[in-house]
Amino acid sequence: MPVKSMEDLFIHTLKDIYYAEKQILKNLPKMAKQAKSPELKQAFEKHREETEGQIERLEKVFETCEVAARGVRCEAMDGILAEAKDVMEEVEDESVREAGMLAAAQTVEHYEISRYGTLIAWAQRLGMKEAQSLLQQNLDEEKRTDQLLTKIAEQSINQKAKA
Amino acid sequence: MPVKSMEDLFIHTLKDIYYAEKQILKNLPKMAKQAKSPELKQAFEKHREETEGQIERLEKVFETCEVAARGVRCEAMDGILAEAKDVMEEVEDESVREAGMLAAAQTVEHYEISRYGTLIAWAQRLGMKEAQSLLQQNLDEEKRTDQLLTKIAEQSINQKAKA
Repeated sequence: MPVKSMEDLFIHTLKDIYYAEKQILKNLPKMAKQAKSPELKQAFEKHREETEGQIERLEKVFETCEVAARGVRCEAMDGILAEAKDVMEEVEDESVREAGMLAAAQTVEHYEISRYGTLIAWAQRLGMKEAQSLLQQNLDEEKRTDQLLTKIAEQSINQKAKA
Repeated sequence: MPVKSMEDLFIHTLKDIYYAEKQILKNLPKMAKQAKSPELKQAFEKHREETEGQIERLEKVFETCEVAARGVRCEAMDGILAEAKDVMEEVEDESVREAGMLAAAQTVEHYEISRYGTLIAWAQRLGMKEAQSLLQQNLDEEKRTDQLLTKIAEQSINQKAKA
């Protein structure tokens, strides 16, 4: 799709984050399975449920634009998830692996925080009020997830991990 | 390098962000050249200078660990920069392209913010005070850059861009 206007750029970026969220949804059960710490496992499971809701909200945003919900490959998220996979497969020590997985999950959250921040600004610019409100709900959830992960890192995972 | 301890994970992640910063340093002049808006051009040029200082600080962190400063390929940053390149090459309209470039730069900043946040927590856990302080300086700069980009988007770029 050629990007000629802000509306095209908005739709393109919406497709990028839609693809990213679907990839995350696919990966979170593997991460939850690998996590041994109950706090981290629970955080991944909760975020899997939230991600389902976020995908639904994105589908509503597509609807408000009268565009079919479809992703475009997001190389950034592919790269971020490839790094998460490496940590899961290559770090033997359980507590060190969990510290790495948690850090990888935070890079996922930050990519999303950045993308939603941008999409909200563009929706506002384009006068798309419903889209703006839906995207704001996703942004708020991602920020809360990032804060929860920081708390789990500080209070549990980083403390346990072998120096 | 097999990652067996938190210290190994710290070094591995330090190499990841070292590679990422070097890739960013390589790409910022291209982005500054493409940017027509004086605010955005200046922001990219200023951040290129800052990135040089950040790389020097990372080299000092390697020194404190008595490890040679060397990067490892960071697939996440490669993906993020590939997306930035696509925007630069594929969007014809100047103002829309700048909105896309600015958004791409914010995904770069957020990746770094996430990585530095993690490295600082781990440095603290490992009792590496000098490393912690050096990494904190990099984090503060990245956060300021992200805020500056948000301001430029709100006050200038997004306003000008063709709906």
